[in-house]
Amino acid sequence: MLASWNDSPATRAIITFVQRVAGAGPGFVPAAERIATFDNDGTLWVERPMPPQFDFLLRTWAAEARNDPSLASRQPYKAIIEGDTAFFAGVLTQDPDVVSPLEQAVARSWKGTTPDEFDGQVRTFIATAKQPRFGVSYTDLVYRPMLELFDYLKANDFRVFVCSGGGRDFMRVFAEETWGIYKEDVIGSAADYEYIEGRIVRQDRMLGGLALGPGKPAHIYAHTGRLPLFAGGNADVDIDMLESATFALLINHDDQHREYAYTDGAKQSLAGANEMGWTVVNIKDDWSTVF
Amino acid sequence: MLASWNDSPATRAIITFVQRVAGAGPGFVPAAERIATFDNDGTLWVERPMPPQFDFLLRTWAAEARNDPSLASRQPYKAIIEGDTAFFAGVLTQDPDVVSPLEQAVARSWKGTTPDEFDGQVRTFIATAKQPRFGVSYTDLVYRPMLELFDYLKANDFRVFVCSGGGRDFMRVFAEETWGIYKEDVIGSAADYEYIEGRIVRQDRMLGGLALGPGKPAHIYAHTGRLPLFAGGNADVDIDMLESATFALLINHDDQHREYAYTDGAKQSLAGANEMGWTVVNIKDDWSTVF
Repeated sequence: MLASWNDSPATRAIITFVQRVAGAGPGFVPAAERIATFDNDGTLWVERPMPPQFDFLLRTWAAEARNDPSLASRQPYKAIIEGDTAFFAGVLTQDPDVVSPLEQAVARSWKGTTPDEFDGQVRTFIATAKQPRFGVSYTDLVYRPMLELFDYLKANDFRVFVCSGGGRDFMRVFAEETWGIYKEDVIGSAADYEYIEGRIVRQDRMLGGLALGPGKPAHIYAHTGRLPLFAGGNADVDIDMLESATFALLINHDDQHREYAYTDGAKQSLAGANEMGWTVVNIKDDWSTVF
Repeated sequence: MLASWNDSPATRAIITFVQRVAGAGPGFVPAAERIATFDNDGTLWVERPMPPQFDFLLRTWAAEARNDPSLASRQPYKAIIEGDTAFFAGVLTQDPDVVSPLEQAVARSWKGTTPDEFDGQVRTFIATAKQPRFGVSYTDLVYRPMLELFDYLKANDFRVFVCSGGGRDFMRVFAEETWGIYKEDVIGSAADYEYIEGRIVRQDRMLGGLALGPGKPAHIYAHTGRLPLFAGGNADVDIDMLESATFALLINHDDQHREYAYTDGAKQSLAGANEMGWTVVNIKDDWSTVF
């Protein structure tokens, strides 16, 4: 079932844990408690040169700035026009000087947009945008070993959830087709909605905070009533989710030929993985097939 | 499978709808879209003389007022001490003069309480409190026909959710054992949580609004990414959820011998049911067994 996983210590650690909690011996965990949660960007698909949703946002905001030149002096439009990529690095550290203008820009872009309209925009993006290095759609760059891991967990009566700092509603558009996971099993940063005159209407505020750092286990608990038995991530913004889980997987991007090699945004998690008892998956050695 | 349902027009309407959406003919609905949502109080269990969670809250607040007499002049403690039941009627109409003090009292009662402590309090309440007329635990007063309906819907590839104006975390304590529904399939009014120093900590604010009236479809959409294909309710606070659904069931409490007979809080929904095309379930005629 884990056909794209090499017979390696990381793979064996996953199998040992899953067989233990699902087996009849000591370490058994009732099926109700078996929830698994996974980050998306860099854990389920390629996040270089930027997370796909960022590409979606930048294209949207660039188009808005072209249509309304008065935006050019304001962030994040200014950074887009000037090619100031450093500005966006503050997202990972949740710098409020970056996050706040981005949240405002998100709200501005989709104010009054119906869910169907937003879904259509995401569908068009997924169908047409190409990842610059590989020249294929982003959904073609989902890691095959992780989809096999989903199947393996489900076969052992786990319920699998995705919890990303990225937009819940963005992911829900392709979750069922791409991951085989129902929309309701996708957790993430999200706009609040109200039901007004028979329609779901997006509000100018978030529901809960960003699902990053401690926001991940907070969102997971709110959604599921539990903390994860199994969690997978790849970055420092996943640390809280990984430490809240019984078994934690950390994807290490070390394969520049088949994918990317980088540790930016993951230095702290990689440094602490051993001490925390997390299982590190090195793409180069642990995955026989990546896509 | 619907053994406690009489062979009546309402029962046949349910079966006809479910067979149509799950069958191969016209009206087929893909399994992914098959979500069913149910109110709890008065739809899944007895809500007279008061919803069980109200009993839980009143016992908690009465104990707090005994321990701290300075609370006696403030609502809702004042209403409890004086037996002013009219004060609490404002909950159903979402009167802010009632809802706001109640929210504050809820926050006050469980400030700093861990999820495990809260779960323990609910478990003790469920195990010890008796419904005054029937003299049994509240969970013994769950309607058997509705549990059979859950099974019938699941057998036809529906996912079943409960969405109550009552507390999400209160219901999650007994959801798995009583309803056969995972915690993550319980939606409702809820406190916001943060993850602080490795622990889930309840905050002094709500996540989203009350799951009443238009708040029900709003919560359902936020949780599932969909509006219901099938919904069941029994009161005016369910109207928005019922109108947002393709098929809607309205429970009419007309059986004073086996349960209760009342239309308070449901007059508008009962009056509008025919025009909206909702299927009204009359407990007296449609259920052969209630509990």
